[in-house]
Amino acid sequence: MIKAYAAHEPGGELQPFEYDPGPLRDDEVEIDVSHCGICHSDLSMWKNDWGMTQYPFVPGHEVAGHISAVGKNVTWLAPGDRVGLGWHAGYCNHCHSCLSGDHNLCQDAQGTIVGHHGGFADKVRAQAISVVKLPESISNELAGPLFCGGITVFNPMVQFDLAPTSKVAVIGIGGLGHMAVKFLRAWGCEVTAFTSSPTKRTEALALGAHKTLDSRDSAALQAAAGQFDLILSTVNVSLDWEGYLSTLKSKGRLHFLGAALEPLQLNVFSLISGQRSVSGSPVGSPATIAKMLSFAERHSICPDVKQFAMSEVNQAMKHLEQVHPQYRVVLRNDFT
Amino acid sequence: MIKAYAAHEPGGELQPFEYDPGPLRDDEVEIDVSHCGICHSDLSMWKNDWGMTQYPFVPGHEVAGHISAVGKNVTWLAPGDRVGLGWHAGYCNHCHSCLSGDHNLCQDAQGTIVGHHGGFADKVRAQAISVVKLPESISNELAGPLFCGGITVFNPMVQFDLAPTSKVAVIGIGGLGHMAVKFLRAWGCEVTAFTSSPTKRTEALALGAHKTLDSRDSAALQAAAGQFDLILSTVNVSLDWEGYLSTLKSKGRLHFLGAALEPLQLNVFSLISGQRSVSGSPVGSPATIAKMLSFAERHSICPDVKQFAMSEVNQAMKHLEQVHPQYRVVLRNDFT
Repeated sequence: MIKAYAAHEPGGELQPFEYDPGPLRDDEVEIDVSHCGICHSDLSMWKNDWGMTQYPFVPGHEVAGHISAVGKNVTWLAPGDRVGLGWHAGYCNHCHSCLSGDHNLCQDAQGTIVGHHGGFADKVRAQAISVVKLPESISNELAGPLFCGGITVFNPMVQFDLAPTSKVAVIGIGGLGHMAVKFLRAWGCEVTAFTSSPTKRTEALALGAHKTLDSRDSAALQAAAGQFDLILSTVNVSLDWEGYLSTLKSKGRLHFLGAALEPLQLNVFSLISGQRSVSGSPVGSPATIAKMLSFAERHSICPDVKQFAMSEVNQAMKHLEQVHPQYRVVLRNDFT
Repeated sequence: MIKAYAAHEPGGELQPFEYDPGPLRDDEVEIDVSHCGICHSDLSMWKNDWGMTQYPFVPGHEVAGHISAVGKNVTWLAPGDRVGLGWHAGYCNHCHSCLSGDHNLCQDAQGTIVGHHGGFADKVRAQAISVVKLPESISNELAGPLFCGGITVFNPMVQFDLAPTSKVAVIGIGGLGHMAVKFLRAWGCEVTAFTSSPTKRTEALALGAHKTLDSRDSAALQAAAGQFDLILSTVNVSLDWEGYLSTLKSKGRLHFLGAALEPLQLNVFSLISGQRSVSGSPVGSPATIAKMLSFAERHSICPDVKQFAMSEVNQAMKHLEQVHPQYRVVLRNDFT
């Protein structure tokens, strides 16, 4: 039996919950969870904001731990290997996206917490292809958030062959944004944090941003016209996107990693006149995750986390929801 | 004196008009206009739809002819050279875009018909950098429309390194769209024309489209989900863009070459889930125009044109506005 914490209704208290995962499948591994980050999408799924949650619901898709068992077809991983698991716990492995290395875009990918029990547990199962070995220097405590928040911000840097000569701005200096600033700084880019909070401004500079820009200061925004090659938006609220578009260089890109539910309104002439793009992307593929881990190790990049015991999971969820911690919450497995 | 046709007020009749262009500047050439295409943007400028027209207004930015005179710094062109001139009649030549070869994105580019007299005339002047020599096999009669409509559809194929293995759809089979179909077919792509008209369907296939898709047939649109790498929209009306986005593959791009004035509404999740992009671009640079002409020559690609004498300019403008000709209107210089 696997011991976990599950909600039985939208937003319901997470309660101890045991389930029998059945026999380990030939292509699966089982992970002894050491730590598991909490992502905003755990909150959204917990409350069934996206209408696709199945209850009992075990959240958790930023897992770090050791492999405890491998299926018989899994020859490249072994018990004891230290690995991480993110948003996806499996892929079809035969569609065009999977065959192209874009497993993260597989239409039949298995979500770790979508119709599948996640990492707020002592163990979690996943297809072996979906877990990635951890470099020695990245601890279990800090690894988890790289597997969802981290890869989400790192992925577009790889996808769009971001040049280290680029000037990049980040909207939203939170769970995703603080990792974006760190990665972009190490990537060699000039990094600007959009923020309207003096506290966040100081923090963004400490995280590695070269500059900050108060997005509520219309004069500052106008002065920044044509500055950026890339803007990464990590927020899920509607902002003055035309204003942000105007701060892009010709050929610049406004890229969404988070989004509000209401539609984006765009003046197409802003795109045409400067050959600009607006785009979005989800998490990354296993190959890109491995690339990120190697880069993070070389540059000593890790998320800033606040740790809770897994038994304090309800308190930790509330903390994430209400306090907006600096910057990522991680649960430590204290099942006995 | 240069003999031309000019409107003296928004939408006013084009009347014979003479002007003194002054001494030829050192970096300029003067072109003896042989033929000049009419583009929809000539209509928009004529009516001052974009609020930037100066009267008297001489339209015409799809010029083909011979050079009659060169400024003293122009060493690479000579009288007698056969050239074309498009939307831009000059660039700053020192900004980042110009220095990067993206003259078409120069913020200080001189429009051929924006505060400058265009090609509905016996002669037109332009900065030598902005004119491009014509290959021998491309006649004056057919060359003009390549310099605005043609380069507008060809440019994104170059900008985004379009792979010949791509599946591309074109929205709007008119002045721009019919050239897009021809270029894409020669580029090696699978070409689909979106059209709801049976006549256009037949024409699109004759132009080289492999398939057509009735965009008003929601079942057909659903069946085309995830089909296209690139969609080029050449229309200036608002359509069901979410429907079109759904026909893009993962990593696909919806690219605007024309646009309605009302803002585009987009669901950002459609972009994020499939790593899709929405973008736009204007005409191309001189280097890309030269690339296009070489490609057009090799593949015998030319626009389908209906010819009028320049003295029939008012009739020709009406024809373009009201009849939506198949596919491009070209004026033949008959000044005496």
